[in-house]
Amino acid sequence: MSTALRNHRIRLASRPHGEPVEADFTRDVVEVPSPDPGQVLLRTRYLSLDPYVRGRMSAAKSYAAPMEVGDVIVGGTVSEVVESAADGFAPGDTVLSYGGWQEYSLESAAHLRRLDPSAVPVTTALGVLGMPGFTAYAGLLAIGKPQPGETVAVAAATGPVGSAVGQIAKLHGARAIGIAGGEQKVARMRELGFDAALDHRAPELAGRLAAASPDGIDVYFENVGGAVWDAVLPRLNEFARVPVCGLAALYNATSAPEGPDRSAQLMREVLSKSLTLRGFIQREFVPTMFEDFLRDMTDWVASGKVQHTEDITEGLDRAPEAFVGMLRGQNFGKAIIQVS
Amino acid sequence: MSTALRNHRIRLASRPHGEPVEADFTRDVVEVPSPDPGQVLLRTRYLSLDPYVRGRMSAAKSYAAPMEVGDVIVGGTVSEVVESAADGFAPGDTVLSYGGWQEYSLESAAHLRRLDPSAVPVTTALGVLGMPGFTAYAGLLAIGKPQPGETVAVAAATGPVGSAVGQIAKLHGARAIGIAGGEQKVARMRELGFDAALDHRAPELAGRLAAASPDGIDVYFENVGGAVWDAVLPRLNEFARVPVCGLAALYNATSAPEGPDRSAQLMREVLSKSLTLRGFIQREFVPTMFEDFLRDMTDWVASGKVQHTEDITEGLDRAPEAFVGMLRGQNFGKAIIQVS
Repeated sequence: MSTALRNHRIRLASRPHGEPVEADFTRDVVEVPSPDPGQVLLRTRYLSLDPYVRGRMSAAKSYAAPMEVGDVIVGGTVSEVVESAADGFAPGDTVLSYGGWQEYSLESAAHLRRLDPSAVPVTTALGVLGMPGFTAYAGLLAIGKPQPGETVAVAAATGPVGSAVGQIAKLHGARAIGIAGGEQKVARMRELGFDAALDHRAPELAGRLAAASPDGIDVYFENVGGAVWDAVLPRLNEFARVPVCGLAALYNATSAPEGPDRSAQLMREVLSKSLTLRGFIQREFVPTMFEDFLRDMTDWVASGKVQHTEDITEGLDRAPEAFVGMLRGQNFGKAIIQVS
Repeated sequence: MSTALRNHRIRLASRPHGEPVEADFTRDVVEVPSPDPGQVLLRTRYLSLDPYVRGRMSAAKSYAAPMEVGDVIVGGTVSEVVESAADGFAPGDTVLSYGGWQEYSLESAAHLRRLDPSAVPVTTALGVLGMPGFTAYAGLLAIGKPQPGETVAVAAATGPVGSAVGQIAKLHGARAIGIAGGEQKVARMRELGFDAALDHRAPELAGRLAAASPDGIDVYFENVGGAVWDAVLPRLNEFARVPVCGLAALYNATSAPEGPDRSAQLMREVLSKSLTLRGFIQREFVPTMFEDFLRDMTDWVASGKVQHTEDITEGLDRAPEAFVGMLRGQNFGKAIIQVS
């Protein structure tokens, strides 16, 4: 059956210099192969857009190997089984996969997680109940360890990670400060229950953050870097914890900023305040925390204790522009492409 | 009796700009007061010289309040009780105190730790069995958590902290790389059992460190900062731990180094390698680990499993020059002033 199908793909044409441009992507159409034994053929329904993918477009070694020029752009997907050569999967099944920027993909059954479309909207598997939600849950609870009455700050606070961080912090009795760009996002942070909501595009962020954190900051969940980090660092309390899961503000940087070199000052702050800076990738915590996460977060979403927002763009063709927009912070909630 | 005694003191005359100079210190002689009830009058026998004191000479807020101009320079001391107005202490007792750069001091009995001169040399209470040894023990074991077969690196590795870090790492089955300045210190690191001993004053430290760490570095015990840290950072493995107890190379710095600003790159490394950077002051771990430390380290010193070196200068008058020499790395082992 699959021989009749044609697969539209978007591949890496060249490594971006700074912000990705259209010429960094190339599109093609190939025939869809049949699955080998143990594989399924999937049709992409929804594609997740995530900041870390910008890092994988560059050649620099990071926590994941870079993509090669010519590769289909990577990304998590909610997909439907079209053809199965694996036990346990049948056409029509909905699964979480890692199909990337294309309409069809082949995947080993072992790499799939089955989704129940009757339980919750399947797109949540890409956001609040998926990798971003788990990043927030694991980083905040395993590294940030917010205590009742402490203050937790997070940027990109209307995005899928930041909004979950703030709401989970509140559920653990902490005070939550959200930072995001623009009035609309400030209003959204207030709806989400943040105790303070700051617009990083308005002037005097440092002063406003100081006013919003009269008792200092005990946990800063770092997913942005840049100017927000500069404003947060002086507000951190002794023994503050900084889970570092992303540095989205830096991903398009093409060179180190001009001096002076503040790296020594950063180390001084780590020393003088007994700070913990801890980088992490969510997969580190999958074996120990993913089951708890799914249970807790499913409860919280079902009961309305954790709200989430999705920003869905229709059409695989628009993935590059939506991706660049997300890196600029133009998305409002979890960025998703509806592919089919 | 105390009215007959005269107390020579060294006080802070001005906050140093860069490396301290003689004019930053002032000397005077005052009469020795009598102890109030609950106090003892102490005669300083040995004074500890430690890098952190340079930080307290500056006005900048750090983990401890700065000294004020006019204050007696602070420092740990091994002292002898001259006169006691406190239960449990009698003239002739030897105690660990915090008497500072002077011949006599008054102290509340509650702040003293009694030492047994018949057990081990009392100067060890300022070094391997005191604050520096405990800094090494607590930071390495509670934060660094070296596992058998892992690689631990430390600078100032013939100093009281670094030499203990390397030897404790070996006792825990790790491989130890020591870094220090000059051939004599390299020879000493070899005697102490370091698996690799590098001279940071010789050219190409980064290349030699890479050759000495074929499996990367899992724990870097940071007590120096500067060029050694720059060489270590690229060698750190995924999930490496960096206890940060000092930045001695930076203490005399008068301004931030020229650019580019590498602080963002440091955060990238934290993220991409899931690093843990953790500042600490040993006192954080006193309630939970000091008893274990005294037991373990006393055993190790007695059995020769941990060796230590002391660099003793005679005469309180020479404390300023010895202190500056220590900040330059000219000491060889734990820097101590024999006061009386």
